[in-house]
Amino acid sequence: MTTSTALLTDRYELTMLAASLRDGTAFRPSVFELFSRRLSGGRRFGVVAGTGRFLELLREFRFGDDELRFLRDEHVVDATSLKHLEEYRFTGTIRGYREGELYFPGSPILTVEGTFADAVVLETLALSVLNHDSAVATAASRMSIAAGERPLAEMGSRRAAERSAVAAARAAYIAGFSATSNLEAGRSWGIPTMGTAAHSWTLLHDTEEEAFRAQVDSMGVGTTLLVDTYDIRNGVETAIRVAGTDLGGVRIDSGDLPIVAGDVRVQLDELGATSTRITVTSDLDEYAIAALAASPVDAYGVGTSVVTGSGYPTASMVYKLAARQDAAGAWIAVAKASADKASYGGRKAAFRTLVDGVATAETVVVSDGFEELDTPAEHPDGRPLQVTFVEAGDIDTAHEGTEGTAAARTHHLRVREELPVRALALSKSDPAIPTVYVEAD
Amino acid sequence: MTTSTALLTDRYELTMLAASLRDGTAFRPSVFELFSRRLSGGRRFGVVAGTGRFLELLREFRFGDDELRFLRDEHVVDATSLKHLEEYRFTGTIRGYREGELYFPGSPILTVEGTFADAVVLETLALSVLNHDSAVATAASRMSIAAGERPLAEMGSRRAAERSAVAAARAAYIAGFSATSNLEAGRSWGIPTMGTAAHSWTLLHDTEEEAFRAQVDSMGVGTTLLVDTYDIRNGVETAIRVAGTDLGGVRIDSGDLPIVAGDVRVQLDELGATSTRITVTSDLDEYAIAALAASPVDAYGVGTSVVTGSGYPTASMVYKLAARQDAAGAWIAVAKASADKASYGGRKAAFRTLVDGVATAETVVVSDGFEELDTPAEHPDGRPLQVTFVEAGDIDTAHEGTEGTAAARTHHLRVREELPVRALALSKSDPAIPTVYVEAD
Repeated sequence: MTTSTALLTDRYELTMLAASLRDGTAFRPSVFELFSRRLSGGRRFGVVAGTGRFLELLREFRFGDDELRFLRDEHVVDATSLKHLEEYRFTGTIRGYREGELYFPGSPILTVEGTFADAVVLETLALSVLNHDSAVATAASRMSIAAGERPLAEMGSRRAAERSAVAAARAAYIAGFSATSNLEAGRSWGIPTMGTAAHSWTLLHDTEEEAFRAQVDSMGVGTTLLVDTYDIRNGVETAIRVAGTDLGGVRIDSGDLPIVAGDVRVQLDELGATSTRITVTSDLDEYAIAALAASPVDAYGVGTSVVTGSGYPTASMVYKLAARQDAAGAWIAVAKASADKASYGGRKAAFRTLVDGVATAETVVVSDGFEELDTPAEHPDGRPLQVTFVEAGDIDTAHEGTEGTAAARTHHLRVREELPVRALALSKSDPAIPTVYVEAD
Repeated sequence: MTTSTALLTDRYELTMLAASLRDGTAFRPSVFELFSRRLSGGRRFGVVAGTGRFLELLREFRFGDDELRFLRDEHVVDATSLKHLEEYRFTGTIRGYREGELYFPGSPILTVEGTFADAVVLETLALSVLNHDSAVATAASRMSIAAGERPLAEMGSRRAAERSAVAAARAAYIAGFSATSNLEAGRSWGIPTMGTAAHSWTLLHDTEEEAFRAQVDSMGVGTTLLVDTYDIRNGVETAIRVAGTDLGGVRIDSGDLPIVAGDVRVQLDELGATSTRITVTSDLDEYAIAALAASPVDAYGVGTSVVTGSGYPTASMVYKLAARQDAAGAWIAVAKASADKASYGGRKAAFRTLVDGVATAETVVVSDGFEELDTPAEHPDGRPLQVTFVEAGDIDTAHEGTEGTAAARTHHLRVREELPVRALALSKSDPAIPTVYVEAD
């Protein structure tokens, strides 16, 4: 696999580039904005994720010999454009919401400023990363809220394409999960990894007891034994007989979980294994987690639902030209006019308005004049939401790698505290706070 | 990004491996089976996709220094296991359904035979690829059936994680789409790419006319102009004034498509542009495509719905130990016993039973005895469905790359012809044909 990310791009971006180089509009200063018109699925808030990954991929957005050869052989663009792409590197500015930040309809999540030629080619890469990762993070945050203090592990890699799985583990971690089963996510992003055994482990052995004994021999009594391959009651009894009452945990992957978890807790306690933990992992989503709140469950493992965004596998973010200069160098705010896809043109600054520490509005200040929009630490409109990720092509490394991922998680857990109580309910509703557009002075 | 795929793996596979090396079960000959217990979403058939990609990724499933260092530093496995993994390469046999083949509940889509240690570590990689790609292909095939002879283009990259997008383009192509917007899919798999311009192209210019003129200058009158940035009727009029009646096409990305398409066709014909084609691209899925069957639409572009499996973003395939030898070398068929997850243990051969060329059953011959299960070209139980992909670790290259992708598409379009008419309906139902289990003689 090539490391270049330049062809993770829709063809029309390059054909527009070619046409713009031909008619002279390629170098018009432009402002593209990545935002969502709505929150999918009646969610009360969205969670921004993917920004750190996007910045890493942006470093590799270069057209090398292999990429140029493909574009030439397929006649995607002309020779002038090939020459331009050969030298391409993004030299503009990218500002936006910190990873882990909440977003609402119209939030200017990412603002890409540069020439049209600079910015138009990043559309697909930016949207691919942010739409996927934010969809996962938004679902994961709801699960994290439903789980309360109980730890949540992401184990859905098998239900996501092999590289998305790594990104999904990262997004879930940012939104409050505490671990993942995915080893590559552990290596790439420093996320704690977990996992012990599958049903195949028990089936490989002639008896469940042999399987449990071998696992305890290999991993110690602190391990978690999967007890539902045959009969759960027998499985629990065997587990404690083999491991003793210091057994770390049992995992249940099937059955009517509230009932089964209660029965297993009683059985464990009767056997004297009062500190042995119960992990449940069967087709959980935020609703099933909430329904288990009163059950004696110690930890959750979530698979399919978190990596597929719990019914909403992609966010609905779009990447739109919001403003550009004309031939005379004057700024013009632009937006598509169709009635069903209203957008606000212009450059934007965004603030989370807070009253007594509780969010009351997403305040978006729209500037037609394109004076510098400050985002100071203190602002009468509220907490400034945008930071600068890329300045004149120079990428701030603080958002990348293990450190960037950890910082995003910390940020998310902090800003989630600002949400009004009604934002924490799982049912479908309007966004928890309104988006308020304000004209710049 | 490392090219190794070895850590695209759930941690428990390696902890099971470690425990099996310790207790001596690691080298028990084993049969793992990848299958689905059901068709998600009341679909009437499933489409296998991803096998060619899986085989390519299997070539890179090697634990190099970086992978081993991570596993050692994180104490995932012990020194004996690290030594084993350092030398790991899959030396077993993999058989299964050809890519593009249809599948039904219980179809043995992929059978991995080798030692437990050989096969257990491939669970996540195989499932990640096949669950994702098959979910997309299954949705895409329904769209392809709904579109009939009209060409379908996949343009959903922005609504899928950046590497999934490439896989999704490939799966859609296998299932009958004719092109993709994704350039990397064009390079990697030889899929035709398409695309012309976004709304930002029009908004970059002072007038729609300037934008259209520049596009036609750059791409020729055969191009497709996006006419709905401002007012569709004005857009069409401007398009023909600029390009003439030989304009290749117009694209409509918003509005009530059956009405708008009809109006645009009338307008184009009145302007004399009778051969100018109409492409529609606004939030289409198989149902919207079917609803446009009577409208004068020439081509469809499908985004979100195809890359997210039209409501079912992952197939429900699982990877289960179906049989293994005991310490004495006797084969034992195994399956998890819980009532809600019934599985058939044993080794399986599968055939599509046909009557007058129409599929009537998925016949799965189950063998407890583990005699050789032939899959000859002719068989009384029907068309044999399994081929050998990997023999003693040697991967058949026929399924990879551009050639493998093209062959899968051809195979899919051919075997779809065997489906009974009722399989082509879009509404939710039972599988189009029953799965019939037969004991081997």
